Amino acid sequence: MEYTTVNYVSKKPKLNNPILIEGLPGIGNVGKLAVEHLIEETKAKKFAEIYSKDFPPQVFINTDGTVKLVNNEFYYIKSKKNERDIVLLTGDYQGLSSQGQYELVEKILDICEELNIKELFTLGGYGLGHEIENPKVLCATTDKSLVKVMKKYGAVFKKNEPGGGIVGASGLLLGIGKIRGFQGTCFMGETPGYLVDPKSAKAVLKILMKVTNLKVGLSALEKKAKEIEHIAHQLREIEGMSKEKTEELKYIG
Amino acid sequence: MEYTTVNYVSKKPKLNNPILIEGLPGIGNVGKLAVEHLIEETKAKKFAEIYSKDFPPQVFINTDGTVKLVNNEFYYIKSKKNERDIVLLTGDYQGLSSQGQYELVEKILDICEELNIKELFTLGGYGLGHEIENPKVLCATTDKSLVKVMKKYGAVFKKNEPGGGIVGASGLLLGIGKIRGFQGTCFMGETPGYLVDPKSAKAVLKILMKVTNLKVGLSALEKKAKEIEHIAHQLREIEGMSKEKTEELKYIG
Amino acid sequence: MEYTTVNYVSKKPKLNNPILIEGLPGIGNVGKLAVEHLIEETKAKKFAEIYSKDFPPQVFINTDGTVKLVNNEFYYIKSKKNERDIVLLTGDYQGLSSQGQYELVEKILDICEELNIKELFTLGGYGLGHEIENPKVLCATTDKSLVKVMKKYGAVFKKNEPGGGIVGASGLLLGIGKIRGFQGTCFMGETPGYLVDPKSAKAVLKILMKVTNLKVGLSALEKKAKEIEHIAHQLREIEGMSKEKTEELKYIG
Amino acid sequence: MEYTTVNYVSKKPKLNNPILIEGLPGIGNVGKLAVEHLIEETKAKKFAEIYSKDFPPQVFINTDGTVKLVNNEFYYIKSKKNERDIVLLTGDYQGLSSQGQYELVEKILDICEELNIKELFTLGGYGLGHEIENPKVLCATTDKSLVKVMKKYGAVFKKNEPGGGIVGASGLLLGIGKIRGFQGTCFMGETPGYLVDPKSAKAVLKILMKVTNLKVGLSALEKKAKEIEHIAHQLREIEGMSKEKTEELKYIG
Repeated sequence: MEYTTVNYVSKKPKLNNPILIEGLPGIGNVGKLAVEHLIEETKAKKFAEIYSKDFPPQVFINTDGTVKLVNNEFYYIKSKKNERDIVLLTGDYQGLSSQGQYELVEKILDICEELNIKELFTLGGYGLGHEIENPKVLCATTDKSLVKVMKKYGAVFKKNEPGGGIVGASGLLLGIGKIRGFQGTCFMGETPGYLVDPKSAKAVLKILMKVTNLKVGLSALEKKAKEIEHIAHQLREIEGMSKEKTEELKYIG
Repeated sequence: MEYTTVNYVSKKPKLNNPILIEGLPGIGNVGKLAVEHLIEETKAKKFAEIYSKDFPPQVFINTDGTVKLVNNEFYYIKSKKNERDIVLLTGDYQGLSSQGQYELVEKILDICEELNIKELFTLGGYGLGHEIENPKVLCATTDKSLVKVMKKYGAVFKKNEPGGGIVGASGLLLGIGKIRGFQGTCFMGETPGYLVDPKSAKAVLKILMKVTNLKVGLSALEKKAKEIEHIAHQLREIEGMSKEKTEELKYIG
Repeated sequence: MEYTTVNYVSKKPKLNNPILIEGLPGIGNVGKLAVEHLIEETKAKKFAEIYSKDFPPQVFINTDGTVKLVNNEFYYIKSKKNERDIVLLTGDYQGLSSQGQYELVEKILDICEELNIKELFTLGGYGLGHEIENPKVLCATTDKSLVKVMKKYGAVFKKNEPGGGIVGASGLLLGIGKIRGFQGTCFMGETPGYLVDPKSAKAVLKILMKVTNLKVGLSALEKKAKEIEHIAHQLREIEGMSKEKTEELKYIG
Repeated sequence: MEYTTVNYVSKKPKLNNPILIEGLPGIGNVGKLAVEHLIEETKAKKFAEIYSKDFPPQVFINTDGTVKLVNNEFYYIKSKKNERDIVLLTGDYQGLSSQGQYELVEKILDICEELNIKELFTLGGYGLGHEIENPKVLCATTDKSLVKVMKKYGAVFKKNEPGGGIVGASGLLLGIGKIRGFQGTCFMGETPGYLVDPKSAKAVLKILMKVTNLKVGLSALEKKAKEIEHIAHQLREIEGMSKEKTEELKYIG
């Protein structure tokens, strides 16, 4: 096992001008929720796993009692004729250290090159620290020409936001990808950041679907969003917290 | 000295269809107690040591005044005819970092391959954070077929437990082992997790003995369990703690 | 991408007996402010970037909405005839770990060798923890002969100061540089260390300009210094703090 | 520069059956004080330096204003005829990480092999957490035969002490050294551990001198011990602390 290892679990798929859509764990788990939703709705097929010695030394336990080493996983969707095929990436963790993050992203880009992927979409959350009724979707890209395109689709570019840039795989995939010749766009759904946020994931998917012509139902996400809203409501009541005070919850979920 | 180094202290043993039983330090020291008990009761023979640059930079001092570099150690038991031989693994530490844990487990599996071991048993504790009269033994395996087998022997499979999966060598040995073609089972004895827990180790050994046909007396463990119960009792009295409050002790031992 | 990678963005410049001037982030951001000021005033040209897996896994977002992987950057200034050319180094981060810092500095020195640079100037701050009207510029060098020279230019050598030596790239460039045969001088501007400190950067540049014969206006730095002084004043008022109490601000900026 | 680099500053000395005496920074700085005292009293000659990327990224500033990269240093003493020559090791730091410590110790042992050193003496402190009038010198060795020898010279072997074994270079040199075929002895002077402790260093040197036949005056250490005793006294007065309460000072020095 290398520091970062790719393990193909089925034959490498033959794809038509494919794009990558990445959603790994992060603030509000926005990206992960979005990509997992796409996998479920489209019945995407898993074809590869990535293991890293920079992931926690941990297995999860499947519902049938068997173990699964923590990893990242690649899925693909064959699209209708003349549409671009889609590769999806999600997983249990991002790398724990800086070096691990860089190595992981380089390995992901290696696989993208093997699959002839030239364009990347990375999904994440943009933590506000307060409640938000209608989350906007902030955007950053590798190329100026993409900025124009994404603005047309309703993505928001705010000067100096996110002020801290983009940390983790969603940022690195664009940053290193740009140097290696990829085009890429990061969509960041506004989120309080306290709890997992299906509402923000839905906002991100809506714009992504417009950009990619992919179509999936969103009702499952809407249902989850209602459940989370219910939990948030209960937490506020239990704690006797006003909306303003819920900031203390920001590390839950 | 490599990052992880194996040092054979005697000739590599010739073993009959051997299994590995691992018990390294962890919550309640359940696994380590269990394997050390097996070593003492069966007078198992040490044949190899593993050193790692990811262990603490430390020596322990033997009772004769000499030093010993911290390590992990392999022992073997030659079983009666037609029974499978047993390799035991215990040690002073697990790796300190993620990478160190992965490297260590890969080295252990390398040795297992050299010894023609195909099946792994890993032992640990499952921390409850409260006292428990009769600890159950939770279980997870590499294969669905093993789930059935272990249920027959009384091992407990609870959906979504342990919720955090299995962290450390006991988990990784199954997780990486599964990818490398090993079969494996992890037994986790329920334990408060405050103190070392010979009672939980005994529960783990009882089921392990049924599964492996190995037979050893358990009175030494029972004696240790009584001593620990006595210490726990004193701690509760000194601190004027009710049973419920002993949770604050959970980092002792 | 190597652990530390150099990426030339234009042809390697041909330079006349060049010197390096380094200013990376640090206490009061004195060195970074000084070198960024030189870049702006002289319209220095960027010719290379350094990436490191020990930098944070992060991109920043340019004002046009595109991303930029965090890095260090090299610029050069062609001087008038018979003057030495100048290479400038600044960046977003220093390495996060000891090893990363050493690797980064070795890579910088590799580039210096390629460019035939033999003399290094490293710029930084010297944190006092209290306000200072007229910051002095402390100095340390690779060679005894340079001590004499720098004293003439007004640099201050205080026995046993800085007591903790020089931590980070400004120190390592001289420390490793000395072993590799470079000459070098570190200028450390006194600074409270609470906020970014353009006043201290100006003091450092004044002496650096005398030593190198480089001439740039300082009014932009003076303007920034006034803005910072205004902010510091406001902070003291808001917090009802006397000058003595502002020490608690020392981690801002 | 390798991860750990040796730099000979003079020709490798030709030594007669030499021993190593190591004293690096640690609790009470006992080992470092002892070896630095030997270097001063015997006018030992420096012949090599070790640099490590696991040391802090730091230079110290010499009294003449020049910088010095933090390191470890080797010195030697040519003894009178028929006596064994002596190699001394001290330095600014130990490695910061486990791996760095292991690498450093392996490099030190490489040099020992090159110099034909077969026996190691490592010096350190044994922290008591309370004042001690007459510090004893605890001992641990690589070989049972050495235990007997050292007991004759007055070294103390206490069962299960130090309970935590020996952490750092003094322990690792014996632990790894034993595996690589060296003989070795560690002398640990009892020390409160609050401040640097020349009194404990003196106790360690007294037994070391008996064992090695090396003879040096101890008055300089005695003078330092008085100064420290004076400082400790003042600290107790200022803080209005009784002897018992000085434990809170344990992280000073």
